[in-house]
Amino acid sequence: MASSIRVVFIGAGPGAADLITVRGARRLATAEVVLFDALTDPALRELAPTARWVDVGKRGFGHATGQAAINALLVQAARDHAAVVRLKGGDPSIFGRLEEEMLALAAAGIAYEVVPGVSAALAAAADAARPLTRRGSGRSVSLTTAMTQLGVLQAKRSADTEVFYMAGRQLDALASKLLEAGWPENTRVCVVSRAGWPDVRITEHSVAGLAEATALHAERPAVVTVGAGAAPLIAAKTPGLERRTQRRQAPTA
Amino acid sequence: MASSIRVVFIGAGPGAADLITVRGARRLATAEVVLFDALTDPALRELAPTARWVDVGKRGFGHATGQAAINALLVQAARDHAAVVRLKGGDPSIFGRLEEEMLALAAAGIAYEVVPGVSAALAAAADAARPLTRRGSGRSVSLTTAMTQLGVLQAKRSADTEVFYMAGRQLDALASKLLEAGWPENTRVCVVSRAGWPDVRITEHSVAGLAEATALHAERPAVVTVGAGAAPLIAAKTPGLERRTQRRQAPTA
Repeated sequence: MASSIRVVFIGAGPGAADLITVRGARRLATAEVVLFDALTDPALRELAPTARWVDVGKRGFGHATGQAAINALLVQAARDHAAVVRLKGGDPSIFGRLEEEMLALAAAGIAYEVVPGVSAALAAAADAARPLTRRGSGRSVSLTTAMTQLGVLQAKRSADTEVFYMAGRQLDALASKLLEAGWPENTRVCVVSRAGWPDVRITEHSVAGLAEATALHAERPAVVTVGAGAAPLIAAKTPGLERRTQRRQAPTA
Repeated sequence: MASSIRVVFIGAGPGAADLITVRGARRLATAEVVLFDALTDPALRELAPTARWVDVGKRGFGHATGQAAINALLVQAARDHAAVVRLKGGDPSIFGRLEEEMLALAAAGIAYEVVPGVSAALAAAADAARPLTRRGSGRSVSLTTAMTQLGVLQAKRSADTEVFYMAGRQLDALASKLLEAGWPENTRVCVVSRAGWPDVRITEHSVAGLAEATALHAERPAVVTVGAGAAPLIAAKTPGLERRTQRRQAPTA
């Protein structure tokens, strides 16, 4: 990294270590300290084996104090070391709480750069072989978190394809919110949990039947695609695709 | 690639060769034939130096026949070779016309997989150090093309942050469409052209003043971010950020 830059935010991609970018991997290799989140693939450590790896996953913190503690750790690391990497799942600019950490560094006068990553929605679309945009029917894609800051589940219908980043156990509640938002009952929904990992799980539903997905994706981070981008590509013509999707699904109870 | 899979769609990222994923780079290295688009960084060829590289950029085709010709080339390549890569700018699932090519392969009974990539909106946010989601003010992000299939420029206001993928020369026309869609005149707009490249250009405007960006980004692929995600991070507190942004801007006439 350039000498004036002390912190590099790197998007690790959605999970599996090989979905990091080449630039991200190279920057990571120069790190003295790496602050990482709980969901990061342990295999990423091989890219910076001599660095000190610090788990700042929020599972051990309260929600609000967690971010403040991470900010403080990051600033301290940058004062103590010339090359700090803040490794984030997916892409740092989308639901990565990048803003808070950038502001903490800026307030401390510490220069940084951002290396983008593959956001989970993109990995889910790749795994499900369902492009988020479609010719004619899908010209806009909305990425949103279903859960507000106050812990209220919300859904909307604002784009041809709506993608929700959420926890698998909330799928039941999402169904009723989607109906309230005006999505017809028979709208196609594709749920992908652990996108980008070898044990990715892909299921498809209607909005009305989405509750059945809860048990299939519980305890797994999920991406829920609703609308144009959730449709399979004319299933009758894609036997190879269907077989592959089946094979890649982990066994379910 | 697995023996049954003959074609791998790979997202090359927004431009610079090192924004491809590690998985994408590895798959590319196994290719016998690579079908690529005009905007791909020539440095990517070093990842597959012995493959046959075929430029299928549409500049030489008419718009409609171009895609059909690409589909035919792709199917033929997969019949002639066990390892074909279709390299696409950004992420294949977002504005990548992936659907048409998948359908052509499926109709021919050819198995494929998709390796995701960094979409231009994510690279633009990283380069501009402006996260697309913000705590409190930015919970949803919409990705859209400003240009419809019929060549009509459209804009909407459906999310906290609206990102338009477009050509730099259309920025003038976009301004009036944004006003029509209900964005206030003083809404912040950040324009990033050639995101992810060393000569990235980053400028900021109001919706009312967006026309001034046309000359700055003409002849360059651009990402236009409107709303919450376009705001700088409290500029007074980020001198390091501002300097860096300035330095990374290419000189403008």
